Amino acid sequence: MLAIINNPERNQFKKLSKRPEIDNVSLSTGIQTIFNEVKRNGDSAILNYTEKFDGVKLDKIVVKIGQPEEISGIDESLKSSIKVAFQNIYNFHKAQTGKDIQVETMQGIICTQKSLPINRIGLYIPGGSAPLFSTVLMLAVPARIAGCKEVILCTPPDKTGNIHPAIIYTAALCGIKEIMVAGGSQAIAGLTFGTESIHSVDKIFGPGNQYVTAAKQMAQQYGVAIDMPAGPSEVLIYADETCNPVFVASDLLAQAEHGSDSQVILVTESIEIIDAVNQALGEQIKNLPRQHFAKEALGHSKAILMSSVDDSFEFINHYAPEHLIIASEFFEQYVDKITNAGSVFLGNYCPESAGDYASGTNHTLPTNGWARSYSGINLDSFLKKITFQSISQEGLQRLGPDILNMAEAEQLQGHANSVKIRLENIVK
Amino acid sequence: MLAIINNPERNQFKKLSKRPEIDNVSLSTGIQTIFNEVKRNGDSAILNYTEKFDGVKLDKIVVKIGQPEEISGIDESLKSSIKVAFQNIYNFHKAQTGKDIQVETMQGIICTQKSLPINRIGLYIPGGSAPLFSTVLMLAVPARIAGCKEVILCTPPDKTGNIHPAIIYTAALCGIKEIMVAGGSQAIAGLTFGTESIHSVDKIFGPGNQYVTAAKQMAQQYGVAIDMPAGPSEVLIYADETCNPVFVASDLLAQAEHGSDSQVILVTESIEIIDAVNQALGEQIKNLPRQHFAKEALGHSKAILMSSVDDSFEFINHYAPEHLIIASEFFEQYVDKITNAGSVFLGNYCPESAGDYASGTNHTLPTNGWARSYSGINLDSFLKKITFQSISQEGLQRLGPDILNMAEAEQLQGHANSVKIRLENIVK
Repeated sequence: MLAIINNPERNQFKKLSKRPEIDNVSLSTGIQTIFNEVKRNGDSAILNYTEKFDGVKLDKIVVKIGQPEEISGIDESLKSSIKVAFQNIYNFHKAQTGKDIQVETMQGIICTQKSLPINRIGLYIPGGSAPLFSTVLMLAVPARIAGCKEVILCTPPDKTGNIHPAIIYTAALCGIKEIMVAGGSQAIAGLTFGTESIHSVDKIFGPGNQYVTAAKQMAQQYGVAIDMPAGPSEVLIYADETCNPVFVASDLLAQAEHGSDSQVILVTESIEIIDAVNQALGEQIKNLPRQHFAKEALGHSKAILMSSVDDSFEFINHYAPEHLIIASEFFEQYVDKITNAGSVFLGNYCPESAGDYASGTNHTLPTNGWARSYSGINLDSFLKKITFQSISQEGLQRLGPDILNMAEAEQLQGHANSVKIRLENIVK
Repeated sequence: MLAIINNPERNQFKKLSKRPEIDNVSLSTGIQTIFNEVKRNGDSAILNYTEKFDGVKLDKIVVKIGQPEEISGIDESLKSSIKVAFQNIYNFHKAQTGKDIQVETMQGIICTQKSLPINRIGLYIPGGSAPLFSTVLMLAVPARIAGCKEVILCTPPDKTGNIHPAIIYTAALCGIKEIMVAGGSQAIAGLTFGTESIHSVDKIFGPGNQYVTAAKQMAQQYGVAIDMPAGPSEVLIYADETCNPVFVASDLLAQAEHGSDSQVILVTESIEIIDAVNQALGEQIKNLPRQHFAKEALGHSKAILMSSVDDSFEFINHYAPEHLIIASEFFEQYVDKITNAGSVFLGNYCPESAGDYASGTNHTLPTNGWARSYSGINLDSFLKKITFQSISQEGLQRLGPDILNMAEAEQLQGHANSVKIRLENIVK
């Protein structure tokens, strides 16, 4: 099922790493109209768009939710699983808490770096048929650990105007008190400008369709930060002779079922593994409910046969996958070869699904090669680092002449004067 | 000189925090042409643009630079000052080095977060009359500490085709071996696509004019990250009765001399301080070489008179200044009130110039209110954090049922299967 690329030259790496191009330009006029409307008419504009796009007429946007134990419509077994995932995600993100850094760089000159929460954040959770309550965990848990003062959660209603109980339960578990029932670019516009019901925020997190993605890009033009550039989800599996091809196939399908634009790559030095994986794919795909997505995704996916481990990892790092699975009993030997990836799954018993839901790592990760420069969501995504410095009179006497020297060489006399005036005052 | 705003209502905060709007849209067609040309014709396109925009015909882009002690044309006193600044900046950024984080979230499930350098980075250093060698320090020093494999520095030539010796010296001191003599959006295009001389990079850092800013935005569309959104530089000074108005005026002017679009704000609860500062401004501006810039900048700047310390800091955090000076002998009492700022200067003997050049903190900071969500450049800006997880068979037996539960509730059967297939295999 996977097309085989045999031992590509290095100059083909760029082409092999190319993801499908996404054209957001054509969306921007429509999104701009929605932004203008929401800016002008607030809640009523959002309610109109909800009726138009989600097909349901609501009379308010805010829904207060109770305590987690009060939420009905979700069975106890799922509640229990969500609690397990919550705890693992909490523990791993809590461990990311850093310390303030303070250095006396010269006597009398103290430089400090402090991490502070981003005050107001917005979380966008897609709705529809498959309720992504796992994304609520991945965003609301670190936001809570960071200490963000306001966490505004937007999610669209279903056709009957309701929110899936699993989303409500997970939000309640994360300490969220109310949900904004709004979706699409109108929700992003609301988070950008603020409305009667929705507070404006400093940074917007969360996945979404192409409209939400385009709206997040537009939000940036109005001074609101976003988590990261979005793109279709992707997995690259590196498999050596100690892999289990049946497991590999199941991981490829788990990715491929996301959507027809999912990116799925197998890298190995063994043609036998490729053949075995392709055979297992054929068997496993038959019973998959979302096999139409999986088939389309596999149609543009590849198995890349390399001639050495080093070549394999040179390609992998060039590709910079969102998810990287090392399908090998002896995964330790490969870890230090990895320089570009969002999240890495080590060994034969570590499916991507574990990280998607419950092991503790975050599932909001850089796609589309952005793993070369972006981190996945982590505690730092909800913090900003502010530097402070204090200088004593003696400290300024010590460093001042160097500042003067440099400011004058950059021809910024005003900068120099601000030091000179102080030094003259000390001498007096 | 500063217009006085007397005790504004909270609903005026948004308007008072507004920075001038920057319209980059009109530039984008021209920038796109340059990007297309550089992508197609590489070095020769860049050399043509250098001739057109910088007015000098070069025959090559790469200039090899020697060891710092070999660089001539810069006096020993400036070399010595740059070395002092280098050491302070090195020490403060080196102290920001974090540790890998490892948590066994459940028995048999080990989650790890590792920081790795961004492999290839580009530094853009503006040239022209005032050579910003201090920016070389602020970017190249943390890049070196982070361990970035390739650091490509681009800077435009002067009218005679040369690079200012202070830039060459500082680059050499930071371990850079060659400089790319290219400026403007053509340099950014070179860093984006790569040319015969310029390697393509994963992330571009550095300030620049509106063309460079627009080009950096375009680079993102081609998958290259950038340091942060750009805007005119700004300072907000909070002054209490223990400030020195003469010092305050000198700091306001140091900011105002940057350019006519510089943002300068004074916040205080004392009209006497505003009057004294305004008087000092009038005296100090007379002798400033760049007083035409300073006058224009002061023309749209403000002194805001507040009625209480808490109101003052509510406004300050709303404004989220790039630079915040606390002009007070008793600065400690204000530190915990600060939630949004790029870098903070504490006390009467701590001019912004210290951090601009030499104290150790970084001077590349979020402007335009982005301090609400962005950190200034720090060691992390040159790193990305990758998560790893390894799961034993026992670990998967422990967590697997919860993953299954959640995947099925999200209607992702392929995700569930990847766990089920493994669990069945363990039972065998």
